[in-house]
Amino acid sequence: MQHLGKHIWVIPEGFIPGSSTGPQEMVSHETACILNTGDADAHVEITFFFPDRDPAGPYRVTVPARRTLHQRFNQFTGDDGVPVGSDYASVLVSDVPVVVQHTRLDSRQAANALLSTLAYGTG
Amino acid sequence: MQHLGKHIWVIPEGFIPGSSTGPQEMVSHETACILNTGDADAHVEITFFFPDRDPAGPYRVTVPARRTLHQRFNQFTGDDGVPVGSDYASVLVSDVPVVVQHTRLDSRQAANALLSTLAYGTG
Amino acid sequence: MQHLGKHIWVIPEGFIPGSSTGPQEMVSHETACILNTGDADAHVEITFFFPDRDPAGPYRVTVPARRTLHQRFNQFTGDDGVPVGSDYASVLVSDVPVVVQHTRLDSRQAANALLSTLAYGTG
Amino acid sequence: MQHLGKHIWVIPEGFIPGSSTGPQEMVSHETACILNTGDADAHVEITFFFPDRDPAGPYRVTVPARRTLHQRFNQFTGDDGVPVGSDYASVLVSDVPVVVQHTRLDSRQAANALLSTLAYGTG
Repeated sequence: MQHLGKHIWVIPEGFIPGSSTGPQEMVSHETACILNTGDADAHVEITFFFPDRDPAGPYRVTVPARRTLHQRFNQFTGDDGVPVGSDYASVLVSDVPVVVQHTRLDSRQAANALLSTLAYGTG
Repeated sequence: MQHLGKHIWVIPEGFIPGSSTGPQEMVSHETACILNTGDADAHVEITFFFPDRDPAGPYRVTVPARRTLHQRFNQFTGDDGVPVGSDYASVLVSDVPVVVQHTRLDSRQAANALLSTLAYGTG
Repeated sequence: MQHLGKHIWVIPEGFIPGSSTGPQEMVSHETACILNTGDADAHVEITFFFPDRDPAGPYRVTVPARRTLHQRFNQFTGDDGVPVGSDYASVLVSDVPVVVQHTRLDSRQAANALLSTLAYGTG
Repeated sequence: MQHLGKHIWVIPEGFIPGSSTGPQEMVSHETACILNTGDADAHVEITFFFPDRDPAGPYRVTVPARRTLHQRFNQFTGDDGVPVGSDYASVLVSDVPVVVQHTRLDSRQAANALLSTLAYGTG
């Protein structure tokens, strides 16, 4: 199948809840779901933006040809990376067209809550 | 009414929760809601993508002229098909323009959670 | 302000849950949020599509100049209209550009769940 | 990084729930997540629309260069501003391209519910 999508994807929303309720599979998280439908691997650079400091990154992930990667942003938390419990945003730049969807699972209260949207694609 | 939409629709997110809480109508599921507004039947091929194996499909469904089909992906689970409790993605290709929206109901915890987004349309 | 948006909006998802939990403000419902930013009234025709019968409508609503109308589809339930507890879809056609967002509140279980997405705009 | 996005963003949905359950971080709210990826500050004017009265605003916020602002609309409630517990909509106009995503947290019932979507970008 051909490469479907765009090279640049923007996700203005970003917030990893600082607590969770329930078993391990229900841990609060944010994910960028990346689909690479084509025959070449996608090399993706992820940059994170914040309210009050310079951007962080880029963090690099590879989505192999004809594969999907559901990349949890929790994996990029740490000193200068993605914060827990405060606002951020992200931009993904790929060397081949891909499609990106943003999802959060928030289990701070007794039952989990979900949000999802297609990211903003351009370029 | 004319055929509205696009021929190709991409849904990077995909995850059928492995358990459910509540009565049968609350069973965890994922759905591709397909609307065919035009006067010709839509023959739709659905291909599933995974993190670590080759794509599966195409699975074929027909959306009759001037009808909507809310196709649950749970129906395609099985040996080589859609997994339960692990990541996937999907691409729908139709011979006439349609519009596709993606929805999940997750009832693993005591109350159900919902997410939905328009898919990425192209072509 | 000028008229922003498109003339035609498509919502493939549609399902009004058949029960509710909690006070009246938490009643399960689906809404098409329509915004008319311009100086002329928007006359909107809503047509509903189903899995197994001909489309119903058009139902007509007016969104005055520089106003928003959050139209609950529950208002169109009845004999040949929108079903409760089964699948449907909708198309909104306006004589001036508007923007449409689709939202559901599902309170069948103990806590409410929400979904929302921008509709598919064209024409 | 270049300025990504559009100058005008439309959010037809708008409703700040009138009550909340749980600790302060779970207070019901609506947010416009704005990302400014470029090297110039973004001056954003937010206008609110209602079902039955003239628009309010514009309210002005600044998103510094290479920063994100997750602007809660709760901050604009008051006499002529955003209502609590009733319908509204919003339009954001920026002097440089930005990207906007709309999110609501509704904690009226025992567990929180979330919705999110990319806004409608134009111009």
